Amino acid sequence: MRKIVIGIMGPGAGATETNLQNAHQLGELIAQQNWVLLTGGRNSGVMEAASQGAKKANGFVIGILPTTDPNSVSPAVDIAIFTDMGNARNNINILSSDVVVACGMGAGTASEVGLALKANKNVILLNTGEESKLFFQSLSKDYVFLANSPQDVIHLIHKIITNESF
Amino acid sequence: MRKIVIGIMGPGAGATETNLQNAHQLGELIAQQNWVLLTGGRNSGVMEAASQGAKKANGFVIGILPTTDPNSVSPAVDIAIFTDMGNARNNINILSSDVVVACGMGAGTASEVGLALKANKNVILLNTGEESKLFFQSLSKDYVFLANSPQDVIHLIHKIITNESF
Amino acid sequence: MRKIVIGIMGPGAGATETNLQNAHQLGELIAQQNWVLLTGGRNSGVMEAASQGAKKANGFVIGILPTTDPNSVSPAVDIAIFTDMGNARNNINILSSDVVVACGMGAGTASEVGLALKANKNVILLNTGEESKLFFQSLSKDYVFLANSPQDVIHLIHKIITNESF
Amino acid sequence: MRKIVIGIMGPGAGATETNLQNAHQLGELIAQQNWVLLTGGRNSGVMEAASQGAKKANGFVIGILPTTDPNSVSPAVDIAIFTDMGNARNNINILSSDVVVACGMGAGTASEVGLALKANKNVILLNTGEESKLFFQSLSKDYVFLANSPQDVIHLIHKIITNESF
Repeated sequence: MRKIVIGIMGPGAGATETNLQNAHQLGELIAQQNWVLLTGGRNSGVMEAASQGAKKANGFVIGILPTTDPNSVSPAVDIAIFTDMGNARNNINILSSDVVVACGMGAGTASEVGLALKANKNVILLNTGEESKLFFQSLSKDYVFLANSPQDVIHLIHKIITNESF
Repeated sequence: MRKIVIGIMGPGAGATETNLQNAHQLGELIAQQNWVLLTGGRNSGVMEAASQGAKKANGFVIGILPTTDPNSVSPAVDIAIFTDMGNARNNINILSSDVVVACGMGAGTASEVGLALKANKNVILLNTGEESKLFFQSLSKDYVFLANSPQDVIHLIHKIITNESF
Repeated sequence: MRKIVIGIMGPGAGATETNLQNAHQLGELIAQQNWVLLTGGRNSGVMEAASQGAKKANGFVIGILPTTDPNSVSPAVDIAIFTDMGNARNNINILSSDVVVACGMGAGTASEVGLALKANKNVILLNTGEESKLFFQSLSKDYVFLANSPQDVIHLIHKIITNESF
Repeated sequence: MRKIVIGIMGPGAGATETNLQNAHQLGELIAQQNWVLLTGGRNSGVMEAASQGAKKANGFVIGILPTTDPNSVSPAVDIAIFTDMGNARNNINILSSDVVVACGMGAGTASEVGLALKANKNVILLNTGEESKLFFQSLSKDYVFLANSPQDVIHLIHKIITNESF
């Protein structure tokens, strides 16, 4: 039976210390719910931190890579999907996630939130700046959720997937 | 020799009357500079208005379609590129444009601006809301330009492509 | 640590009874080696048979879907990757597989073998027709292997991944 | 109004002298019919030869590139579509061509013919080897055509597009 997949999106090189701590804790909490963690797969920033967090809790991690380079993959990824399609793979990230969490913000993450809203996916923004909140809420009233902590995110995901009766 | 390609991005069904008027005029002005117009190719909203504007001035229009459906193509498109990859084609739109213009805003357009900034493409925002400006300027100081009219956009494009000495 | 992923490619609606039996047995054998099975994900033909075989042996199945339709997914798939990019997803199938097995032949499978050889992936042809063998061997001497049974395939995969010292 | 687009596919580095001569002449003949030439866009092999042939006859050339590298583009390309999706762009090549011509054969070209047949596109094989003919004719009786010269190809295209009443 298909597993529930939670996607964590966020900056690579541009991640802040808070982004990394949140991502690590989120990865751990997601694994504890027996959900699969999906990330952009690289050994960098939010992707790496979330994957390591999930792995710490014996979770399962799937990484959707932009290239074919095995050396770019986080060592905490269980299955690497090599797309070789650069940032066009961002659309696969969000289409394959039952819920999308943005943990920090940057140009790539912004594209993922945009693509997620375009596909009517629920998106949770965790501790993103005021500009992000105002902007994405102006795009969608129904699919944008705000969270202040990794625990908040988990509560929101439970509500969302219960409503959608997965 | 390769032609200069200007991409106009903007809402389909959700376009406002102002978006449509701007897009039509922009298409016309772009054609008058002998630049190629690139859009998402559909017969809807900003894509259709810009294509019709370019066609009115005997311009050349290339449309990057999300599906394989010939009936979805704007009649003003000269060459239709059928990607069959949904909104992942947004990345092709921006990578193939020398300068990207956002004429109006929505989830799909937001993803295109995000992808453009990720690829270090120059993006001009035309009459988008305050939230868009603040958000995208928070993502990039160097690649986001603001314009108040189609004529402004043309002036900015000239500056940008002169600096990059195409 | 990254798991070994074996991709089984083959016809959907056009699969023969022999293709289906081979795919089912292959899925089972792959699961017994603790390899992950990767398929095109749909509930049809070789994809469905291989996934059911792997599931019977408590294996892990990842499906790379051409659409976003959850109803098209094989019930034996554990994680569905929704690409929404039609047959362009065939390239992801082969790039994400450590070894590619063609179980039967058709236009889609032919494209996958072509893409695999282009990417220097090892491809095993199982009971494909004489024309397939001659054609693909004319394209590549080094990366095309022939097998007469699912057991043969497993032996070949062991040889290949030992040589490449995964 | 949408222009007729003819796609020429064929090897890059692996092209033979005959492939190159055929491609050059084909490009020229296609331009003389006022059809748009579509290729994989690179400055190599059949792509380059066909593009130069079309340019010699003042034709219009569109190139669908696998990368974002402007230095990889044939100088005879008028509009470069940068996909950054590697060989997954092969699917765009064939979906965007009204008729597909394979001028020579290799792994990448084989994938394009497979994808074309999967999409029910008409494919003309020009002077490909016996193995190619037998293989692709075994995949499809209705969509595979054989030609012995560039002139033959042009005659076949006229027949095909007349039947489909473009």
